[in-house]
Amino acid sequence: MHAVDVSITEVGLRDGLQNTKSFMPTAAKNAWISAEAAAGVRQIEVCSFVPAKLIPQFADAEEVLAHANAIPGLTAVVLVPNLRGCERALESGARRVMVPISVSEAHSLSNVRKTTAEAVEDFRRMADLVRSQGQAGRAQLVGACSTAFGCSMQGVVAEDDVVRVAVALRQAGADAISLADTVGYANPEQVKRLFHKVRAAIGEDFHIEAHFHNTRGLGLANALAAFEAGVRSFDSTLGGLGGCPFAPGASGNVVTEDLVFMFESMGVRTGIDIDKLIAVRNTVFTALPDAELYGHISKAGLPKGFQPRSRAA
Amino acid sequence: MHAVDVSITEVGLRDGLQNTKSFMPTAAKNAWISAEAAAGVRQIEVCSFVPAKLIPQFADAEEVLAHANAIPGLTAVVLVPNLRGCERALESGARRVMVPISVSEAHSLSNVRKTTAEAVEDFRRMADLVRSQGQAGRAQLVGACSTAFGCSMQGVVAEDDVVRVAVALRQAGADAISLADTVGYANPEQVKRLFHKVRAAIGEDFHIEAHFHNTRGLGLANALAAFEAGVRSFDSTLGGLGGCPFAPGASGNVVTEDLVFMFESMGVRTGIDIDKLIAVRNTVFTALPDAELYGHISKAGLPKGFQPRSRAA
Repeated sequence: MHAVDVSITEVGLRDGLQNTKSFMPTAAKNAWISAEAAAGVRQIEVCSFVPAKLIPQFADAEEVLAHANAIPGLTAVVLVPNLRGCERALESGARRVMVPISVSEAHSLSNVRKTTAEAVEDFRRMADLVRSQGQAGRAQLVGACSTAFGCSMQGVVAEDDVVRVAVALRQAGADAISLADTVGYANPEQVKRLFHKVRAAIGEDFHIEAHFHNTRGLGLANALAAFEAGVRSFDSTLGGLGGCPFAPGASGNVVTEDLVFMFESMGVRTGIDIDKLIAVRNTVFTALPDAELYGHISKAGLPKGFQPRSRAA
Repeated sequence: MHAVDVSITEVGLRDGLQNTKSFMPTAAKNAWISAEAAAGVRQIEVCSFVPAKLIPQFADAEEVLAHANAIPGLTAVVLVPNLRGCERALESGARRVMVPISVSEAHSLSNVRKTTAEAVEDFRRMADLVRSQGQAGRAQLVGACSTAFGCSMQGVVAEDDVVRVAVALRQAGADAISLADTVGYANPEQVKRLFHKVRAAIGEDFHIEAHFHNTRGLGLANALAAFEAGVRSFDSTLGGLGGCPFAPGASGNVVTEDLVFMFESMGVRTGIDIDKLIAVRNTVFTALPDAELYGHISKAGLPKGFQPRSRAA
């Protein structure tokens, strides 16, 4: 394993697949995970522990997690929406559990039928459950502040609300905090300001992550702004998989291969081999012919004389 | 006229149209210029004074320039490749003349069959010609360092070469310097570093502009980096018109409406009404049905509760 300057988490198997129409076969999911791990990706969000009747795409969550957990050097992340999901995830051997908490009350009520405060209380129960595993080797719990940069229902989300929820999640037992631009409303100025505020409140040394969408084209600019604000962990999806169902034709998450290109071209090591990563697009496209893949570097090719900082071993 | 924080120059009629297959009728060009001016765009690069047999698209350069010059509050910019083009432009009433000088020798020889040093000498003759008009109300001359961030023929372009050419252009009589990422190779770290170096060499108060392509997806991130390095003037094209013929499927220039959205969402005034600007896409698309238009904000729509800083009067 080589040293890296930023950690990129592939979330296409969760945030991307939850919106696709067709079920991606388990073997294809596992091939995708293996191929990205072989390209040097060290953290992959592989599934969501939601009832299969709600999102059939994740009916094979246990199998996919078991496959990912068996890959040396890879950390598998799973999303859980509630305590029951967290129990299932831990029983299935999850090592890193991501819990979205909507800062927007409107979004929280619509999404999980709980107020934000009730969702934070739920998070505390998950933290207690995780700690009941004992400290040695227990799962890590990530509190993700959804709609942190705005909400398509509520509109503006107050920055003080984000800070308050982030502090509450840390106090409730989070091992890391993530700020998520769930609907692609963020701008670089806001990103810098909000990450500075939240880091000042939860502690500069506390682990913090950024999750951006590219719905309005600012995904990479926002990632750059977050990097400048000290963030070193970023979510993204291969081919930008994950278009928002409420914005037809609009692209989805930040594109992993473009994000890797941006950082590597800046001399910031991702540990990811960009040529191998781009080749994984074919794997995904073959398994999901209906899905629209985005991205620039895969079409334009690397610059002549380009020297990436990272080459996977 | 309201105050602005950044100046955005629409270059779609020149950098965009020079690569399109079909001729855009003069009336459509003029309608495009009028509509963008009405949306609050104050500077538009309207044509290139090259021989019509080389680029038939610009056979109507005089007519288009005359139309643009008649619009109150609008500064029309024209590109000229050489002294003869500069003479024609001045005779046609050009008020702002942009001259690209390739820092890459390979690109310069291929493009204008001159070494970079010979092109700088040509530029000096243009500066003398402009000054022979007298100081009062004479045309402004912009020296644009092409391939400043890399070249698809030469690969890496040394930063010292860019600084040297920028200084030579200023000494030769440029009123402004532009750094252009002609082939979409730039990254944000390089953008900051190079603009700082060039500004230190030509003077922090000397007018400097940025011209980015979005070929590899970093256009807006590079614009953000340039803004952070003190740049306040940016080129872009409506719908990102201007795909590179050497990178099929890859997008072209930075998208004007996305650039305006980025700045306005950051609270940086462009003076441009983004709704009116987006509506101009239809004008262009109707006149150029073959052209591929890019962009995010036109598809995704403005965020709920979005408050742009600028509303055109």
